[in-house]
Amino acid sequence: MNKNLTRRQLLSMVGAAGGATAVYNTSLALGLMSDAGAPARLDLQHVPKGGARIIVLGAGIAGLTVAYELERVGYDVQIIEASKRVGGRNLTVRHGDVIDEMGHQQVCRFDDHPEMYFNAGPARIPGHHRRVMHYCKSLNVPLQVKANFSRPAYTHDTENFAGKPVRVQQYVADARGFLSELLYKAIDQNRFDEPLSADDRERLMHFASTFGDLQPDGSYKGSLRGGYDEGGFLSPAVQRAPLEFRALLNSSWWERGMLSAENPDWAAPLMEVVGGMDNIVKAFVRELKTRVILNAQVQDIRLKSDGVDVVYNHNGKRRKLSADYCFNSIPSHFMPAIPNNLPPDYQAGLAAMVPGNFFKIGLQMKKRFWEDEGIYGGATSTNQKINTIWYPSHGIHGEKGVLLGAYAFFGQCKFFERMNPAERLQFAADCGDKIHKNYSSYIEAGVSVPWGRMNHMMGCGTTWSEEVRNEYFALLQQPAGGRHYMIGDQISYHSSWQEGAFASAEYALLDFNRRVRADATRQGVR
Amino acid sequence: MNKNLTRRQLLSMVGAAGGATAVYNTSLALGLMSDAGAPARLDLQHVPKGGARIIVLGAGIAGLTVAYELERVGYDVQIIEASKRVGGRNLTVRHGDVIDEMGHQQVCRFDDHPEMYFNAGPARIPGHHRRVMHYCKSLNVPLQVKANFSRPAYTHDTENFAGKPVRVQQYVADARGFLSELLYKAIDQNRFDEPLSADDRERLMHFASTFGDLQPDGSYKGSLRGGYDEGGFLSPAVQRAPLEFRALLNSSWWERGMLSAENPDWAAPLMEVVGGMDNIVKAFVRELKTRVILNAQVQDIRLKSDGVDVVYNHNGKRRKLSADYCFNSIPSHFMPAIPNNLPPDYQAGLAAMVPGNFFKIGLQMKKRFWEDEGIYGGATSTNQKINTIWYPSHGIHGEKGVLLGAYAFFGQCKFFERMNPAERLQFAADCGDKIHKNYSSYIEAGVSVPWGRMNHMMGCGTTWSEEVRNEYFALLQQPAGGRHYMIGDQISYHSSWQEGAFASAEYALLDFNRRVRADATRQGVR
Repeated sequence: MNKNLTRRQLLSMVGAAGGATAVYNTSLALGLMSDAGAPARLDLQHVPKGGARIIVLGAGIAGLTVAYELERVGYDVQIIEASKRVGGRNLTVRHGDVIDEMGHQQVCRFDDHPEMYFNAGPARIPGHHRRVMHYCKSLNVPLQVKANFSRPAYTHDTENFAGKPVRVQQYVADARGFLSELLYKAIDQNRFDEPLSADDRERLMHFASTFGDLQPDGSYKGSLRGGYDEGGFLSPAVQRAPLEFRALLNSSWWERGMLSAENPDWAAPLMEVVGGMDNIVKAFVRELKTRVILNAQVQDIRLKSDGVDVVYNHNGKRRKLSADYCFNSIPSHFMPAIPNNLPPDYQAGLAAMVPGNFFKIGLQMKKRFWEDEGIYGGATSTNQKINTIWYPSHGIHGEKGVLLGAYAFFGQCKFFERMNPAERLQFAADCGDKIHKNYSSYIEAGVSVPWGRMNHMMGCGTTWSEEVRNEYFALLQQPAGGRHYMIGDQISYHSSWQEGAFASAEYALLDFNRRVRADATRQGVR
Repeated sequence: MNKNLTRRQLLSMVGAAGGATAVYNTSLALGLMSDAGAPARLDLQHVPKGGARIIVLGAGIAGLTVAYELERVGYDVQIIEASKRVGGRNLTVRHGDVIDEMGHQQVCRFDDHPEMYFNAGPARIPGHHRRVMHYCKSLNVPLQVKANFSRPAYTHDTENFAGKPVRVQQYVADARGFLSELLYKAIDQNRFDEPLSADDRERLMHFASTFGDLQPDGSYKGSLRGGYDEGGFLSPAVQRAPLEFRALLNSSWWERGMLSAENPDWAAPLMEVVGGMDNIVKAFVRELKTRVILNAQVQDIRLKSDGVDVVYNHNGKRRKLSADYCFNSIPSHFMPAIPNNLPPDYQAGLAAMVPGNFFKIGLQMKKRFWEDEGIYGGATSTNQKINTIWYPSHGIHGEKGVLLGAYAFFGQCKFFERMNPAERLQFAADCGDKIHKNYSSYIEAGVSVPWGRMNHMMGCGTTWSEEVRNEYFALLQQPAGGRHYMIGDQISYHSSWQEGAFASAEYALLDFNRRVRADATRQGVR
C-alpha cells in the first residue's frame, strides 16, 4: 500500500480501479463515516414490528453488532452460528472451557478464578479504535489500561548477547545512543552535499545529543535510561555498561519488534476489557432479544430479487429461513464450498481472499515470577518460534497469573499446528527456560489455540494482496443484489482486529439504511 | 553527577570524601541492601515487650515504615506528627478535604465518588521502585497500570505549529524520521573520518531506515506511525503530512519532555494505587498499634548518651517524651529552627540541604472530553506555565474525571504561589482552553496544592548540590550519637519519590539492627 496517498490521489486511484460506484462508496467511507474519527451516527430508520426479517450468518463481533443495531429499530433478526458458542474469534478461555480444535480437544485446567483467563483472540484495544470504544462504553463493558510495551521486560536473541535476555530499556537506550552518536559525528564533520550553517549545526548536534543522551563530546557511553546497574536510591545510580554496537547492529530486534509500539495499533496506552475480552460478547448477548441458533451450519445461500433464503443444518436436520436481507460474516474461505447464487464477480472476490493465521498459547503460572524480576505486564520478545512472552498486567501481586507463552503469525503457525497440544506446551516451556530461570517449573496448566485448525474458523486475519484489494474490495463492501452483505473484519482494512469487524458492520448498516430510506421515500413513507 | 562511575571508582571517590566509615556504609548500601534489586530482608532483632522505646518524628512514608517494622518486632513506638493528618506528602484529595495551605484554605468540592480523587503528591509507581512495590504487596494495597506517556495526547507549543496542539505520535514519528533521514544521508555519503565498509554501510542504512520509517531512497515523507489522517478501517489509511523539520527543530518539546519516558522512573508501565495513593498510608495506619499523635510540633531534640528526649507542643501544652532511639523525618529546612544538640557537622549538613518545590492543580471535569479526542490517560505537554495536563486512566468511560491541570517544578512554582487559589484555577483554565476546545466549560471544581506553602511542609523534593552531597550525605545517613537517625526521601538519591522515603527507612532500620545485634552480642544476649 502506498503510504503517501493524498485524499485526492486516493479517490482518483479508486476511480480508475472500480468506476463511479467505487468512488461514491469511498467518499462515503471518508466523509459520512468518519473512518478515523468518532463512530458514525447510525440513525437507522425505525420499522414497525415484524416489518422486515433479517438473517445474520455468524455470531462474531460483526454479526452481533448488526443484529443488535437492527433489533433496536424494530427488525426481526435471526442469527445462525456454526459453532457451539457465540463470539467468533473473540474468545476468552477459562476453567473448564473446551478448545474446539479439529482433531485435538483440550479442556482448560486453569483455576476457577476470575483473574485466571486467557484472551486467545483479540487482547488489546487502542483508543483510536473508536468503534470498539463506542460499544464498550454504550454496553457498559468496563475497560482498564493494559501494559504492552514494557521497558523492564526483555529482548532475547539466541544468536546475540551470548543468548542472554537484555532488558528492553537497555537495548532501546543503546540503539538510540549509537544512532545519535553517528548522527552527531556526521553533523560535526558537516560533510553533507549542502553543508549546514553554524546555527543549524549547533541545533542539530544538540538534538542528536538530547535524543541519544550523548556525552559532551558527542560520544555514546551508555545512559541511565538503560536502567541502573546498581544504586540509585541510597547510593548514586550506576549505569549499565552499553551493549556492543556491533552486536546490537547484528541483532534482530530493532528490525523485528523494537519499533512495534510506534504503530498506532500498538501505541500506548492500550486497553483491555476487565475480566476478559469476551465480556463484549456477553454484553451483546444480554441485549439481544433473539437467541443465537448454535451448531447451525449454512448449506445454501439463495439470493432472490426480494430477499435471501438460507438453508442450514441444525442437529442433523435441514432447515430453511427466508429473510428480506442477509448479513453474512462466514469466513471468505468457506464461501466457495457453500452452494450459493451470488454474482460471479462477487464469488470470485471471495475466492481470491486468503485467510491468515494466528497461534497462541496461554499458560497458568503458579507464581508471578516476572514481578520478582521487576516486570509488571508487557511483553518480552525473542527470536525463538514462540516470538513473545506477554505478562498479564491485571492482578498485580496476586499469587498466580496467566501469561501468553507463544504468539505466532501466518506462516509461523504451521510449526505449532503439526504438534499435539502437549508437545506445543513442552516447546513453549523449553523456550521460556532460555529467558526466565525456572520458567517451566511454574507452569500449572496450558492451552494452545491454533486459529488455522479451529473448527468453523480454519484461519483468521484475512490477507488482501494489493491486486485483489483493488479488484474486489469495493465490490465486496456492496450488497449483492442489494440484499446480501458480506461483513466481518475480513471486509475491512483492519482484519484480525475487532475494529475491522465493527467497521464492516457500520458500513453495511449505513448502506442498508440509505437503501431502506430511499425505498421509503420512493413509496411515500417517512 | 558523573554517570559513568564504575563501582570501584565510586568507592574510591566516596572514600576520598568521607573516609573509611563512608566506604563502609556505601558498601553496605551497594551490597547487603541490594539497592537496585529486591528490597533487603530486614531480619530485625525481636525484643521483649517494653524492651526499648522508639520515637518517630513525622508520619509520612518513612516514619510510618520505621514505626511499622519496629512495632512488629516488639518495640514501643510513638509517632509525633506536626500536621492534622497522617501521610506527609502522600496526599490524596477527595470531597470535603481541606487543603492546609499557609494563608489560604481551600475545601475540595469534588463529587463524593470513589473515582473522584486527586493525588497531590506522588501519583505513579515504576516497577523498579522495589520497596514501594514490596510494601504495596505485603500490605495488600491493590495496584493498577497507569497510562503516563500517551501517543494520542498532545504536545503544545505556543511558539510553534501555529500554536496548535500536535499529537504526540506525530511529533515523535516525525522527529525520529528526520533524524533518521539525516543519518541515512550521512552514511550514504560515507564521509566519516574512517569510511564504513560496504556491509556496514548497508546494515546501518537499513537500521536508519527502519528506525525512521524512511522511503526507499532514504528520505522521510511522514509515517503512519504518526497516526492516520483518515481511513484505515474502511478505506486505506492516509497518513498525516509530516511537520516541517525546521519547525520541529525550533520547537521545544524534544528537549523538554519528548524523552521523559526514557527515564526509568517514568518508563512504561507505570502503576498507581487503586482508589488513590493514600491507600498505602491507610494500610500502615491499619497495621499500627500505636496511635499517631497529630498536631504535635517538635520544639526540642536532646541527644543523650543513652537515648533521645523530644519536647513537643500538643494543643498548647508542652510535653516531653524520652526514648532509646529517635527516627526523625522532619524536613531538613525546619531543623535549624528547632533547638537541638545534634553534632555541629550534622547540623551543618541539615542546614546545607535545599528544599525543592512542586505545585499541582486537580480539576474535576464534568465530562471526560479527552476520551472524545481519543485520549485515554497519559499527559499532554505544553510550554505554558501549567506544563502538563494529565488525564486519568482509571474510570474510563465514566461520566466525569479528575485531571491534573497544572504541574510545576522548583522555581516555576513561585508564579502560582503568588496567586490566590481562584486565580490559579482561572490561569489553568485559560491555558487548557488553548489546547482543548471548551476546556474551561467542563471544570466543576478545582484545588491547588503548592507544596512550598503547605503548612508543616514548606517545600518538597530536597535538592543536593554535588558539593553538599559529597560532604554531608554519608554523614546524615548515619545516626547522630548512634541514637538519632534522619530519614525521609530527603536522605536518599530519590528525593520527592516514595521509594526514596522507603529506602531511607530501610537503611536506618538495617543500621539500627546491626547496632542492636552488636550490643546484644557484647552483652552475651542472643
